[in-house]
Amino acid sequence: MKIAQVAPLREKVPPLNYGGIELVVSRLTDELVRRGHEVTLFASGDSETLATLEAVYPRALRLDPDVSDYDLYEMLELSQVYQRFAEFDVIHSHIGVMALPMASLVSTPTIHTLHGSFTPDTSKAFSYHQNQPYVSISDAQRKVDLNYVSTVYNGILTENYSFFERAEEPPYLAFLGRLSPEKGPQNAIAIAKKSGWTLKMAGKIDEVDTEFFAAEIAPHIDGEQIQYLGEVSHPQKVELMGKAAATLFPITWREPFGLVMIESMATGTPVIAMNLGSVPEVINDGVTGFVCENIDEMVEAIPKVLQLNRQVCREYVENKFTVTQMVNGYEAVYEKIIQQRIESNGRIHAAKIQY
Amino acid sequence: MKIAQVAPLREKVPPLNYGGIELVVSRLTDELVRRGHEVTLFASGDSETLATLEAVYPRALRLDPDVSDYDLYEMLELSQVYQRFAEFDVIHSHIGVMALPMASLVSTPTIHTLHGSFTPDTSKAFSYHQNQPYVSISDAQRKVDLNYVSTVYNGILTENYSFFERAEEPPYLAFLGRLSPEKGPQNAIAIAKKSGWTLKMAGKIDEVDTEFFAAEIAPHIDGEQIQYLGEVSHPQKVELMGKAAATLFPITWREPFGLVMIESMATGTPVIAMNLGSVPEVINDGVTGFVCENIDEMVEAIPKVLQLNRQVCREYVENKFTVTQMVNGYEAVYEKIIQQRIESNGRIHAAKIQY
Repeated sequence: MKIAQVAPLREKVPPLNYGGIELVVSRLTDELVRRGHEVTLFASGDSETLATLEAVYPRALRLDPDVSDYDLYEMLELSQVYQRFAEFDVIHSHIGVMALPMASLVSTPTIHTLHGSFTPDTSKAFSYHQNQPYVSISDAQRKVDLNYVSTVYNGILTENYSFFERAEEPPYLAFLGRLSPEKGPQNAIAIAKKSGWTLKMAGKIDEVDTEFFAAEIAPHIDGEQIQYLGEVSHPQKVELMGKAAATLFPITWREPFGLVMIESMATGTPVIAMNLGSVPEVINDGVTGFVCENIDEMVEAIPKVLQLNRQVCREYVENKFTVTQMVNGYEAVYEKIIQQRIESNGRIHAAKIQY
Repeated sequence: MKIAQVAPLREKVPPLNYGGIELVVSRLTDELVRRGHEVTLFASGDSETLATLEAVYPRALRLDPDVSDYDLYEMLELSQVYQRFAEFDVIHSHIGVMALPMASLVSTPTIHTLHGSFTPDTSKAFSYHQNQPYVSISDAQRKVDLNYVSTVYNGILTENYSFFERAEEPPYLAFLGRLSPEKGPQNAIAIAKKSGWTLKMAGKIDEVDTEFFAAEIAPHIDGEQIQYLGEVSHPQKVELMGKAAATLFPITWREPFGLVMIESMATGTPVIAMNLGSVPEVINDGVTGFVCENIDEMVEAIPKVLQLNRQVCREYVENKFTVTQMVNGYEAVYEKIIQQRIESNGRIHAAKIQY
């Protein structure tokens, strides 16, 4: 199959540190190439991939102080993609709304993976193009009535996550993620204080969250019970999660997927999470963690989580959330959509318009 | 001819007060209808037009507190336009870069009028699509190498601008425009103070300019020599300009056109302007005003401007900057581009892609 993968340009593929979408695109693209597909990856020029790389800009936009309008470069990237539409059997966009108007003008089908949540403005744009084929990354994400062709869960390479047979002594709770209100580090602190457990937090602080961090998080950090380790590398993250008794996922928003949950379970560490968004789909409640309704339930889950089998957590991820399963899911979607398009149009490609 | 006109959505067409692009689109659209063309105007739903109105949103976006992402709605509007491309002989976009990726995917030609100036980011986007047909609104605007098919100056309906045979006594200078650094109200004040003349200013203060206004403009307003009349209606504007001895246009940026200059000359009032952007194309130097290199030259021009013939100023606009001439210019562009497209493709419309 000739496949175009279209990544955002903010981070390189794969990302240096944080960048969930770019990580998923990287794993998907490389595995598709390994399976024999002819893949062109549209991404920032510093990306590393097994596919043919096409870059509209030499660097990840976040690293370039000369660039102020990110959307404009992603629009240019989409121009590049769609002017070459006839070269591809399928275009897979990870960009969101911006690809919609172009996608509906060409005969090559575009699959749109929804990586984020809907805003009132983006809901209108998606609804206008509701017949385009969408992939949700959890069933919970389907808040707007669209033509969802499948849910394909994000997957990780489990070999990049060491398995930890037992939690470290003395035991502690882990929190990993952006230190932003929607990820709930404030809840993690409340849970630690109510339970008396040690909490080790790591993650980046976005500029928009500096006030929140200063007011709600920093005053509680004592380096003893409440520890903040800053931004950490992948190996540090794996160790921090893997040695924890439990990872907290005390979100306050409808997380569309939540990679941290599967990363933690892959290391053997169960997850205590708030019942929002994808959480009940990603955690096997009572087996690989606990799905809770409030902070008190999360506190009560701590002694119970110690009874869970860490090997089962690992196997659960291996059976459900690997790159292999993710790519199986997308391959099936591509085949289905191409078949549908051939049936409705009698061909995949329209004659190329000359200009 | 079947023509789609695509307006921005920030203001209605025509605009309530400020909104140069929306005013030009309104005049152009109505005159095209009067000449027998079949015109569809894509604009905000509160627009008033002789054409068939198609609106993706019921109100001008600026008036709607629920809308935060303007680009998204203009993208939706463009979706609407380009899904119907086969219904039109020509699409005329006043939106800027956002129309480019879609325009190059369909067989109906799009004419892009450049209403603004280039930024480093937009330059890249335009350059990528440099073969699209562009109309500049002054020759001076052509700072990026593109396929410019014509310069079509903006035009006004001179019947909406009363002619004033003589300036009011005691005489004063007028400044009209946004109170922002690039429009140069600070220079207007300097000119008034150096010359001892009275200055009457009117125009809106954008939110981004409130600090500038407070620091650079407000301290000089004394209600006597330096007067600020706030935002004014069209009749008030015409009177303010028409009764002035001269209108100042002391810009600090490369104005792509500058409607205020032709509005002032239409009332009979010559313009003293800084030599930037379109200024030497719009003013007949020494006849309908003076094109100056600095503030001192603008001060020295004041006694000279009193010698100019106000009737000549009026006739100059009537001969060069009316809606009639503007529409003549665009009609010629449409015909030329459609002809070119037929010659290169053998047809205007591609088969419509079904999906």
